[in-house]
Amino acid sequence: METRVLEIRKGILNKNDEIARGLRERLHACGLLTVNLVSSPGSGKTAFLQRTLRTLRKGGKAAAALVGDLATDNDAKRLAEAGVPVRQITTDGRCHLEAQMVADHLAGWDLGALEYLFIENVGNLVCPSSYDLGEDVRVVLLSVTEGEDKPLKYPTIFNSADVAVITKMDLAEACEFDLEAAQRNIQAVRPGMRVLTVSSKNGAGMGEWLAYLAGERAARVEGTTRS
Amino acid sequence: METRVLEIRKGILNKNDEIARGLRERLHACGLLTVNLVSSPGSGKTAFLQRTLRTLRKGGKAAAALVGDLATDNDAKRLAEAGVPVRQITTDGRCHLEAQMVADHLAGWDLGALEYLFIENVGNLVCPSSYDLGEDVRVVLLSVTEGEDKPLKYPTIFNSADVAVITKMDLAEACEFDLEAAQRNIQAVRPGMRVLTVSSKNGAGMGEWLAYLAGERAARVEGTTRS
Repeated sequence: METRVLEIRKGILNKNDEIARGLRERLHACGLLTVNLVSSPGSGKTAFLQRTLRTLRKGGKAAAALVGDLATDNDAKRLAEAGVPVRQITTDGRCHLEAQMVADHLAGWDLGALEYLFIENVGNLVCPSSYDLGEDVRVVLLSVTEGEDKPLKYPTIFNSADVAVITKMDLAEACEFDLEAAQRNIQAVRPGMRVLTVSSKNGAGMGEWLAYLAGERAARVEGTTRS
Repeated sequence: METRVLEIRKGILNKNDEIARGLRERLHACGLLTVNLVSSPGSGKTAFLQRTLRTLRKGGKAAAALVGDLATDNDAKRLAEAGVPVRQITTDGRCHLEAQMVADHLAGWDLGALEYLFIENVGNLVCPSSYDLGEDVRVVLLSVTEGEDKPLKYPTIFNSADVAVITKMDLAEACEFDLEAAQRNIQAVRPGMRVLTVSSKNGAGMGEWLAYLAGERAARVEGTTRS
């Protein structure tokens, strides 16, 4: 019985992968860099995204966001304050987003006018690792309050992500956070992984993060499309 | 296809429920109160459990712990420092514990000599809500660093838990944690839910937590068995 479930799940994954592949091509053709943010509940995804969207907007960059949650549209409301297009995806208790949910929620948006699409996944450090959403960059967030050992304990998501962002650096001292140990654990799971440190509260590290995004967009999207 | 998956999952759940029911009877017959701890990764389950085990041991109470993780036995090592029987359950990437995993890891322990069994679930605020582990008490932990809105965004786990424990209260001020808002959100999802506040660092609230456990054991286990 267990085997059958695994087989059917694999079927769903392959279907999801197909949809994700088509979605990625479509988003690239529109000139969009798509970023999937994954973390535990409470790691500060929404605050980080809020600050990212506000800063991009001030810099004249066009971005939009989709935000996944089991219930409520609290996060969409928070993000909409940044003055960019935002939509909530409510999963009705499901533990991850899938590519079709993303595709369904893009309807009516002028994608050609956007440069960045952010997808805030459901707060879950396990299940979202198995679902490609058509993103170019998968970001795993880890807050200083969660402890340095999370990469070792949740290796799959760290393995499948492109970059790690350590959030809430303003609380690092109060939490006795050991950045070197966190770095060591990330590198043990994923050698060579790029790690950024940020504080959404005081803005530290946001410049490097935005430069990273611009670099990724230049490398992955511009030139291949309208540029 | 989706429907078939759901049906088969329901089959697995029912099988799990059956195993959990048998396990609960067996543990009661041994005079054990069983406690299932569920939270996000990094909410402080292990530190809380460490302090709980140490304090019970000092008070002459016999306890043991099982600890679930996708990978590593770091938590079992940390908990073993409390000087009580501890075993790691490694789920190989699965996002929750199931009753059979618990049953399999009790082999060889003298259950009749124990009063409390703690099960630290995989760090995940979504999937563990669907799996009864044979516990008497399901505890959902929420750290002050995660934000006050988590009960609204993860209602299933708060609905299925018996008690909520707010952890890392020593960081409440640094995080500008609003306890009243958290309480309000918990009560909105689960009216009447008991909420305890603790700091595993300075020990605040541990007395009330241990009194709660003793009360639950008296009500649910003693009298029905060896007492």
